[in-house]
Amino acid sequence: MRCTPRSIVLCASIAAAASAAAAALAPAGLLADEGMWLFNRLPVKQLEERHGFAPAEGWALHLQRSAVRLSSGGSGSFVSPDGLVMTNHHVGSDALQKLSTKERNLLETGFLAKTRDEELRCPDLEILSLVEIADVTGRVNGAVPAGADAAAANKARREMMATIEKESKDATGLQSEAVTLYQGGEYHLYRYKRYAEVRLVMAPETSIAFYGGDVDNFEFPRHDLDICFFRVYEDGKPAKVERHLRWSPKGTRDGDLVFVAGHPGSTRRLNTVDHFRFLRDLEYPSRLATLARREVTLEQLSIRGAEEARIARDELFGVQNSRKALRGVLAGLLDPAILTAKSAAEAELRARVAAEPKLGASLEDWSRIAQARRAFAQFYDEYQLLESARAFWSELFGKARTLVRLADEREKPNAERLPGYRESDMETLELNLYSPAPIYPQLERTTLADSLTQLAAYLGAEHPLARMILAGKAPIDRAAEIVGGTRLLDVEARRELAKGGKAAVAASADPMIALARTVDPYARAARRKFEDLVQGVEREAYGNISRAVFAIKGTEVYPDATFTLRLAFGVVKGWNEAGQDVPAFTTMGEAFAKHDAHEGKEPFKLPESWLEARDRIDPRTPFNFVSTADIIGGNSGSPVVDRRGELVGIIFDGNIHSLVLDISYTEEKARAVSVDSRAILEALRKVYGASALADELEGKPRGAR
Amino acid sequence: MRCTPRSIVLCASIAAAASAAAAALAPAGLLADEGMWLFNRLPVKQLEERHGFAPAEGWALHLQRSAVRLSSGGSGSFVSPDGLVMTNHHVGSDALQKLSTKERNLLETGFLAKTRDEELRCPDLEILSLVEIADVTGRVNGAVPAGADAAAANKARREMMATIEKESKDATGLQSEAVTLYQGGEYHLYRYKRYAEVRLVMAPETSIAFYGGDVDNFEFPRHDLDICFFRVYEDGKPAKVERHLRWSPKGTRDGDLVFVAGHPGSTRRLNTVDHFRFLRDLEYPSRLATLARREVTLEQLSIRGAEEARIARDELFGVQNSRKALRGVLAGLLDPAILTAKSAAEAELRARVAAEPKLGASLEDWSRIAQARRAFAQFYDEYQLLESARAFWSELFGKARTLVRLADEREKPNAERLPGYRESDMETLELNLYSPAPIYPQLERTTLADSLTQLAAYLGAEHPLARMILAGKAPIDRAAEIVGGTRLLDVEARRELAKGGKAAVAASADPMIALARTVDPYARAARRKFEDLVQGVEREAYGNISRAVFAIKGTEVYPDATFTLRLAFGVVKGWNEAGQDVPAFTTMGEAFAKHDAHEGKEPFKLPESWLEARDRIDPRTPFNFVSTADIIGGNSGSPVVDRRGELVGIIFDGNIHSLVLDISYTEEKARAVSVDSRAILEALRKVYGASALADELEGKPRGAR
Repeated sequence: MRCTPRSIVLCASIAAAASAAAAALAPAGLLADEGMWLFNRLPVKQLEERHGFAPAEGWALHLQRSAVRLSSGGSGSFVSPDGLVMTNHHVGSDALQKLSTKERNLLETGFLAKTRDEELRCPDLEILSLVEIADVTGRVNGAVPAGADAAAANKARREMMATIEKESKDATGLQSEAVTLYQGGEYHLYRYKRYAEVRLVMAPETSIAFYGGDVDNFEFPRHDLDICFFRVYEDGKPAKVERHLRWSPKGTRDGDLVFVAGHPGSTRRLNTVDHFRFLRDLEYPSRLATLARREVTLEQLSIRGAEEARIARDELFGVQNSRKALRGVLAGLLDPAILTAKSAAEAELRARVAAEPKLGASLEDWSRIAQARRAFAQFYDEYQLLESARAFWSELFGKARTLVRLADEREKPNAERLPGYRESDMETLELNLYSPAPIYPQLERTTLADSLTQLAAYLGAEHPLARMILAGKAPIDRAAEIVGGTRLLDVEARRELAKGGKAAVAASADPMIALARTVDPYARAARRKFEDLVQGVEREAYGNISRAVFAIKGTEVYPDATFTLRLAFGVVKGWNEAGQDVPAFTTMGEAFAKHDAHEGKEPFKLPESWLEARDRIDPRTPFNFVSTADIIGGNSGSPVVDRRGELVGIIFDGNIHSLVLDISYTEEKARAVSVDSRAILEALRKVYGASALADELEGKPRGAR
Repeated sequence: MRCTPRSIVLCASIAAAASAAAAALAPAGLLADEGMWLFNRLPVKQLEERHGFAPAEGWALHLQRSAVRLSSGGSGSFVSPDGLVMTNHHVGSDALQKLSTKERNLLETGFLAKTRDEELRCPDLEILSLVEIADVTGRVNGAVPAGADAAAANKARREMMATIEKESKDATGLQSEAVTLYQGGEYHLYRYKRYAEVRLVMAPETSIAFYGGDVDNFEFPRHDLDICFFRVYEDGKPAKVERHLRWSPKGTRDGDLVFVAGHPGSTRRLNTVDHFRFLRDLEYPSRLATLARREVTLEQLSIRGAEEARIARDELFGVQNSRKALRGVLAGLLDPAILTAKSAAEAELRARVAAEPKLGASLEDWSRIAQARRAFAQFYDEYQLLESARAFWSELFGKARTLVRLADEREKPNAERLPGYRESDMETLELNLYSPAPIYPQLERTTLADSLTQLAAYLGAEHPLARMILAGKAPIDRAAEIVGGTRLLDVEARRELAKGGKAAVAASADPMIALARTVDPYARAARRKFEDLVQGVEREAYGNISRAVFAIKGTEVYPDATFTLRLAFGVVKGWNEAGQDVPAFTTMGEAFAKHDAHEGKEPFKLPESWLEARDRIDPRTPFNFVSTADIIGGNSGSPVVDRRGELVGIIFDGNIHSLVLDISYTEEKARAVSVDSRAILEALRKVYGASALADELEGKPRGAR
C-alpha cells in the first residue's frame, strides 16, 4: 500500500525523492504523462497535444469538488449525493483500528452497515472538500520588510500566511490553508468545506484489502480490494453533497486516457543535487534505522498473543509500509545513474542562470542550499528526536505535547503561533485532542521504552538532557512509570488541562505532561534552528531557482506536491519487465488461483466470505489495473475517472518502479495501481450482499432498492 | 536460546556485559554460587564451605575430558564410550541447516539414524575435547623486551603465544591454544583432542526444540527439547572415547547441588566503568541497529516463500536470538543502579591501589583504558564494517577473505601471522574453507546488498572507498554482479585458488576475490589500530588491575570467560517473580496443556510426533528445570551433573534475569535453564522410537538392544 495513516509524513517524503529522481532524467522537459497539476492551472496544452482532450466547461470543477482529503492521510471522493465517500481500506484502517475492540476486530472481520442506522461514528476522522483556490503570492511576499535577513523574512511570511488564513476563515467559514508552492515561488490559499462527523459504512477484511501482504506490496500483478466507504454527516444526518462522481457503467480499457484527482503528499523534484546527497547519506538511512528498530519492537509485541497483535497492527503495517517504500527509494538514490542525470540537468540550469541575470536567480542560491543542509546535518538527529518526537514514540506524549504547546501558544497573537495552533486549526486540534479513540497502555509502554532507549543511545545515557528525561531510571522503567502514572488516557483529564491553560499545565504533576514540559524548550530550540537556518534559507534560494525555472519553462512546470489537490493523467497500460509483458489488468479469478497455488497460506489466504462466494463471482471481472498517471504517497484513495469524468477505479498503490523511478522510468515502467470499479461492484453484490450500497454507487434511486 | 552458531561472537560479548553487571553488585566478594572456574584452579574452598562438597580424586578430570566444545559455538559432552555427543538443537542447527535441502528440511522434520549406517556426515563441524592445561604466563611475559611500548609488547606476546602453540602441536599432536586470562594477568595453554569427522545421530523438530519460539526465548517456565546428538568418528568408525558421562538413573531434585562444565563465551566482569559506558552508549546500540536491519531483511526474504524461509532460517534465528539477548543486556546497562554499584566497587579498588603501590597497579591504568576506548570510539564503525566485515554480510565474502589472507599470511613466519592462519590453525581453516555445505546465491545477494547499503550510508555513497567497493553501481546491482559472477560457490575453485597462492589470488578476476582484495588493506589498517591503540594498551592496564585484584582477593577470583572450559555450580531452585513463586521444574504434560491453550497456534504448535505420542508420555515427567549455576552464552549444550558426576540435564538457556543480571540478581532471580535428562529419555523412547539411542545413553550393552 502507499500510505497508511500514521505513516503519511514518511510516505510523503519518500515520494519526494522518487519523483525528484524522475525529474532528474528529464532535464529537457516533461516526460510522457508526467505531472501533478494544480486545479487552478491545468495542463490544457499537454492534454490537447498528447491526448486530443479538451475538458468541457465545469469538468475540472466537478472533479475538484467531488475529490476529498482525509485527515488520516489519504484521498477519496464523494460517490453519492448522500455524502458517501470511497477511499482505500489502508486509508480507513486508522479509523477501523480505533473502532475495534478485543471482541470486535473490524480490521480482521470487515464491516457492513446494513442500514444507515448501523453506520459507525469514527472518533476523530475528518474529511475536507476543496471549494476554491486563490493566489496570495503578492500579499505574502509583500509582508517581508526591505532588507530582512532570511530568518526574519521567513517569519514575516509565515505570520502573513496565518493572518490570511484567519481572515478567510472568518469571512467564509471555510477551513483555510495558505500553501507554499514551488518551494516558495508562489503562495495559494485553499478553502475547504470540512466534515467532522464521519461514519463507517463498509470495509472488507484486511486479508482481501491487503491480499498478498508485505510480499505483494508495491508489486504487480495484484489482487487487492483496497477499498473502504465512509459517509459524512451534518447535524446527525447524511450530508447532502453538492457534487459527486458518477459510477462508470462500463469501466475502463487498455489504452484509455484516465485522470486522477488526489493529494500527493510531498515531492521535491526541484531539489538540488546536494540536497539529494543529504537525503541519501543522512536522512533516509537515519529514518530506515528507526523504522527497523520499530518494526522489530512491534513484531516482538505482536507475537505475544492475539490481542497484542491486534493493538499493534495498524502501527506495524504503517512501519512496514514505510520501510518497504523508503528502502526502494534509497536503493534508487544509491543508483549513480540517477544523480548523474540530475547533475547534468542542474549544470544546464546553472549555466542558464549564470548567463541570464534577468532570471533572478544566481549560483549563490545552490551554494546557500548546500550550506543550509550542512548546517542541518549537524542537528538532524537532535531535531528528529526532540522536535519530531522520535524519542517519544507514544500517542499520549503527542497529546501531552499538544496540551503543553496549546497553553503557551494560546497566549500569543494568532499570527505568531506555531502551525497547528492557530485559530483556524482549533477545530481539528480539538477533534484529535479529545478523541475517544482507544489508547493501549501496553503498546504505549512498549513504544515509549523503545524510543527512550534510542534517545539514550544517541545522547549517551549520562548526557544531562537524558538524565532529565530518564529521571534516574532505566528507559523501560521510566516508560512504565510515565504510562502507568499519566491520567491522559482519560479524555476528561485532557479537557480539564486544556481548560486550565498555562497555569494548570505548569502545575500539573502528571508524568507525561511533565515529560512534555521538560522536553519542550529543547524541541523548540531545534525547531527554531531548523526554521531559521534551513527552512528560511531554502525558501529564498529555492524560490529564486523556481522562478528562474518558471521563466524558462513556463506552463510546463507544476509545483512539487504539498498534500493538496492535484490532477494527474495517464493511459491504462501494462509494461515490459525483463522481456515479459505485464498486462494492465488482473482478474478476480486470478485471486482464487493464487490462493490455490499457495494452498491458502498467509498472506495468500482469501477470507471465508470470498471462498464461500467463489461460484457466484465472475472470474473474468477486472480486479486491479495499472496506468501511467503520475502519483505518489498521499494519492491513496484517489478516484480514477475517464474523459467523461466517470469513476472507473481507485488508486491504492504504485508498482516498485514508481518508487525508485530510476532509469527504467524513461522506458515507462512506473505505474499507478488501481482497484477496478467493476470488481468493487462485483464484490459488494456477490460477496458481501451489499446491494443497497452498490445501488447507491450506481445511482439507482433509493426507492428501487 | 542462548547461542546459535552464527551468533556466537555476539552472544559471547552479550554475556560479558551481563556478568559484569553482576560483578558490579558484589564489590565485597563472591555472590552465592557465582563463578566460572578454571579446571586447573577449582573453587575447592567455596564448594566445601557452601555445599560441604569435596570432589573425589579424578572427579574433575573425568568431567573435564567428558565435556566437549563444538566449532559451531557451543558446548556438549560425550555420553557413551562410542563417541556419542549430546548438545543443544540450537548448537547443532548450523549442521542441520547445512545437511538440509529443499526436499529434506531437517530443521523442520527432525532426524533419527535408526542404525549407525544412517548417521549423516556433517560438512564442517568439529568437536574438541580438553586433554590438559598448562600455565605459560612466565614464558609469554618473558618475551616482551625491556622498555617496549604497549603495541610492541602486545606484538611480542602474541608471537610467543603462536610459538608456544606450534611447539605444543608439534610435540603432542594435540590442537593447542594459548589463552589470555584475567585480561592479560595470566596465559594458559589448552591442549585438545580434535575430532573433525562428526555425524548427525538424532535431532528433534525445531517446533519442540524451540517450543514457544521467540516468545518464550529467555523465559521460564519453559518446555523445550533443545537437544541434538552427534557422534565423533575416527577413520570412518565411531571413535572409542576414553571418558564419557554416566546417565543418572534418577535425575535431580529441588535443592540438589549441580555442576555445569561448559564453555562460557566471553565475560568482562573486570571491566572499568568507562569501558561499560562505551558498551552502553556505542557498541551495543551500534550492534542492535545492525541486528534490527538484518532481522528486517531476513524476514523480508523469508516471507517470499517456503524455500526462502528455509534458506534464511538459521541466520534469522541467530539474529533474533542475539537481538533479544542484547536488548536485554542493554536494558540492564541503562539501569543506573548497575553502574552506580559498579562505580562504588571501582572506587574501593582504586583507593586500595592508590594506597598500596606493592599491588603493582596504578590509577593510570584506569585512565589508559578510558583513553583507549575514546580512541576506539573514533574508529569503531570503521573497524566493524571493514575488519569485522559488517559491510560484507556474505558467506562467500568470508571464503574470499580467507583465501586472500591465506595467500599473504602463508608467506610470513608462523609466529607473525594473524590468528587463524598459523600452522596450528590450518586443519580448522581448511575444514571450513573447503566445506561442501550449501551456500545459497539468493541469500548471499540479499545479505550482501543490505550490508553494502549500510556501508554506503556510513561512508556516504560518494566516499572514495565506497566508490571503489561499489564500482559505480547501486549496492543491489553490485551485490547481484558479485554473487552472480563469483566461482567460489564451487569448492574446487577455492582449492585451486588456495593452491595457487599469492600469485593466483592477485591474478584472479573473480569479483568476490577482487572485493576482498580491495577491502583488505583498509580492514588490516583498522585491525592494526585496534591491536596497537586499544588491545595493546588494555592488555597491560587490565593485566595490572587484574593482578592487583588477585593480590587482594586471592582464590576468590576467577578469570573472565574466554570460550574455554569452566566449572560452574549451583542449586536446583526456582525463584520469586513479583510475589509469585516460579517452581524449579516444568513437566511434559504442561507442554501439551500450552498447546491446547493456544489452540496449536505458532509458536505453541507441538509437532505431529508429539501429538501422536500424547497418550504414551507420562505427563508428570520433569521437562525443564532451573538452577543458580553461573552460565552465559557459549554454555549452550553444557552437561549438568550431580555430586556423583552423573548427567542430570543439559543447559540450553538462561532466564531473562540471567541476561540483565540487574539488581534482582542479588535477590537470586538469575537462573540457568536445562532440559531434564528424564524428559530426554521419555521423548526418545515414547515419541521417537529411538530405543537404541536411549539404551546407549543408559549404558545398556549393545547386544541387549
